[in-house]
Amino acid sequence: MLHSLDLPVVLDTRAGTVRLRRATAADLDGLMTLLSDDPISASRGDVASGEDAPAYARALAEIVDDPANELLVAVDDADRIVGTMQLTRIPGMARRGSTRLLVEAVRVRSDLRSAGIGGAMMRWVIEVAAPALGSSLVQLTSDAARTGAHRFYERLGFAASHVGFKYRVPGA
Amino acid sequence: MLHSLDLPVVLDTRAGTVRLRRATAADLDGLMTLLSDDPISASRGDVASGEDAPAYARALAEIVDDPANELLVAVDDADRIVGTMQLTRIPGMARRGSTRLLVEAVRVRSDLRSAGIGGAMMRWVIEVAAPALGSSLVQLTSDAARTGAHRFYERLGFAASHVGFKYRVPGA
Repeated sequence: MLHSLDLPVVLDTRAGTVRLRRATAADLDGLMTLLSDDPISASRGDVASGEDAPAYARALAEIVDDPANELLVAVDDADRIVGTMQLTRIPGMARRGSTRLLVEAVRVRSDLRSAGIGGAMMRWVIEVAAPALGSSLVQLTSDAARTGAHRFYERLGFAASHVGFKYRVPGA
Repeated sequence: MLHSLDLPVVLDTRAGTVRLRRATAADLDGLMTLLSDDPISASRGDVASGEDAPAYARALAEIVDDPANELLVAVDDADRIVGTMQLTRIPGMARRGSTRLLVEAVRVRSDLRSAGIGGAMMRWVIEVAAPALGSSLVQLTSDAARTGAHRFYERLGFAASHVGFKYRVPGA
């Protein structure tokens, strides 16, 4: 499904252009490093430990192979990862049979935040990807502690209309 | 993926037992009626209008065919729909490559609320479905106006840790 998206695409940011492309297995190390470059993710166990590499590699392979999911990376001129996000297309009955586009795990390298990279990625999602995929609703959840991110999503036109609940399965 | 779930299953509620089974194309009318039987859904356009039946039928067929999605219905002894929910299995990189189980569009027939049907459905999700699918996290969003539902999810062990953002794609 998401393989129909026209990628890679070049996005303008205040730090110059970045290229948004599909992640591949070769991005494993860069993605692990980027996930650990965030205190909230790190507190949940994303610390780029070599021990966890097989679990991340399995997850990456599964996302790449899944037609309903797309893991994207924003890269600089040297193909270094500066941002990432995951898209999931979800058909649904509610809202008269609307298809949703779920955005998960939006991250930008900490030293490049406020350069407009995240904004360029999200504008591409709502202006290009969602219409191309026939999704009338884009949705995401953001940790309640990320108040700066909340203002960012509201500026983009998102409504903070819902409460996001998480349940950690014991022993899993 | 979700076709591996052991269904149908009989759930105990205070209104007697209900059977939780996969939805089929034959459930279209019952599902449209159930969605409209809720003021918040109705305010978003789910009013069981015959005009909308083709859109709902397309969505239902797409969900039923999608290996990452499962639309479930809880039915009474006469196979009348008393509840529904949609499950989506989402592989991910965050939280050390955790697979998530997203629950969407949980509804119980309005005259049967408080009979424990929703609780039985959700307990089956967190105790049976999530472990069977290797999902370490169950997540959902609930409209900020549904304060009764929020208490319900917290009683089940969910944490209201996130803010849920929605963006309606113009013209879609």
